[in-house]
Amino acid sequence: MDAESLGHHTSSRFDADLERLRGNVLQMGGLVERQLQRALAGFVDANFQQLVTVVREEQIVNELERAIDEDCGRILATRSPVGSDLRLLISILKSNADLERIGDEAEKIAAIAAKRSGRDLPQDDFVELRHMGEVAQSMVHDALDASARLDAKLALDVIRRDRVLDEEYDTLQRQSVARLSEDPRGVRRTLDAMWVVRALERVGDHAKNVCEHLIYAVHGKDVRHVPLEDAERQLNENAI
Amino acid sequence: MDAESLGHHTSSRFDADLERLRGNVLQMGGLVERQLQRALAGFVDANFQQLVTVVREEQIVNELERAIDEDCGRILATRSPVGSDLRLLISILKSNADLERIGDEAEKIAAIAAKRSGRDLPQDDFVELRHMGEVAQSMVHDALDASARLDAKLALDVIRRDRVLDEEYDTLQRQSVARLSEDPRGVRRTLDAMWVVRALERVGDHAKNVCEHLIYAVHGKDVRHVPLEDAERQLNENAI
Repeated sequence: MDAESLGHHTSSRFDADLERLRGNVLQMGGLVERQLQRALAGFVDANFQQLVTVVREEQIVNELERAIDEDCGRILATRSPVGSDLRLLISILKSNADLERIGDEAEKIAAIAAKRSGRDLPQDDFVELRHMGEVAQSMVHDALDASARLDAKLALDVIRRDRVLDEEYDTLQRQSVARLSEDPRGVRRTLDAMWVVRALERVGDHAKNVCEHLIYAVHGKDVRHVPLEDAERQLNENAI
Repeated sequence: MDAESLGHHTSSRFDADLERLRGNVLQMGGLVERQLQRALAGFVDANFQQLVTVVREEQIVNELERAIDEDCGRILATRSPVGSDLRLLISILKSNADLERIGDEAEKIAAIAAKRSGRDLPQDDFVELRHMGEVAQSMVHDALDASARLDAKLALDVIRRDRVLDEEYDTLQRQSVARLSEDPRGVRRTLDAMWVVRALERVGDHAKNVCEHLIYAVHGKDVRHVPLEDAERQLNENAI
């Protein structure tokens, strides 16, 4: 099964079903990606308008999540797909939950930022979070790109990046713990940064999950809980 | 569609498939429930043996997660289920991820506890966490019980309890923030408690998700992101 043959089959109605479904998934993905961007920008720049938009978009994301699941159920019931088509539907059902949770984490960041902006604190661009934010955002972006192009190689690259994110997470949390002991007056600021770092780590996990589901859809391989090197070898045997 | 008619149909092979699948789900549920119990007990009593068991069981949980998803895919491909059978399979695919993450959160608690026990700190039974731990554990227990008995009423009760958990979460986190400012020497202890409280809040969310998936399986109603009162009304109309 190679990626190109996915989504191409004899039933043109089924094709239309899958196209509509994938369009909704990509729309939802685009929304949560923007939520994350806005939440981080709003946190760093204390831009209240960005934060309001993140919260407002939550409802659209929730509605899309419901619509996508409902559509998956309807297609499964009416088309009884098998093989790669079935795998694609299962992977969409699974990824849908991960995308929605990326949106949730963005909202958590926005909520922390909104509280900060209400406290009239001195300007603080949280420079130490910048790189981790960029890595997490790139993972979400590329997980969606991989989903759009059924690109298992890119998906594997995103999974690889999750290690970098986890290392940055550990470093930043260690620094925060030290700072809490040394600077009790800066407790609020340090905790805010810690929660954002935690949310970014979760975002990375969900982007990784989306990529694992995609690899299952494309190659029928379940690479969850498999060491990265084994996953790479398995996929190389499939000549991705 | 009432609960009793779920799982009863003409194909006895299909019945056998579903029974095996549900057996695996309940086995996995039982495992993560024990992981959570042991992680909390190990955290409070600094019982290292409990913690080792939590980590050792992770692999079994991961294998069950893979086996359950694979089985769902196989049943969908070979039996082309519709109606309540299809909904049950979709709900198992979804709940599977939530159960695995409850196990993940238990492992996070165990990891914090293991680090503490390596630090040779004074005895500390974290009495302030006890009630929240009990609520989270009861939610997991009853979510599994509801799944075993296809009991949407109990599922709704678990969803209701998630509000209590969220309130306790807010209270405990506020107390921790105050403590961090007042007692810089106790930073490590306070942070450990904060991370456990966070893990428990996530456990409650996943137990709630399992219950929402179950209500979808039993009644075909998607009660995610719906205010609790509306979900209750919807289900009352179905006379659960």
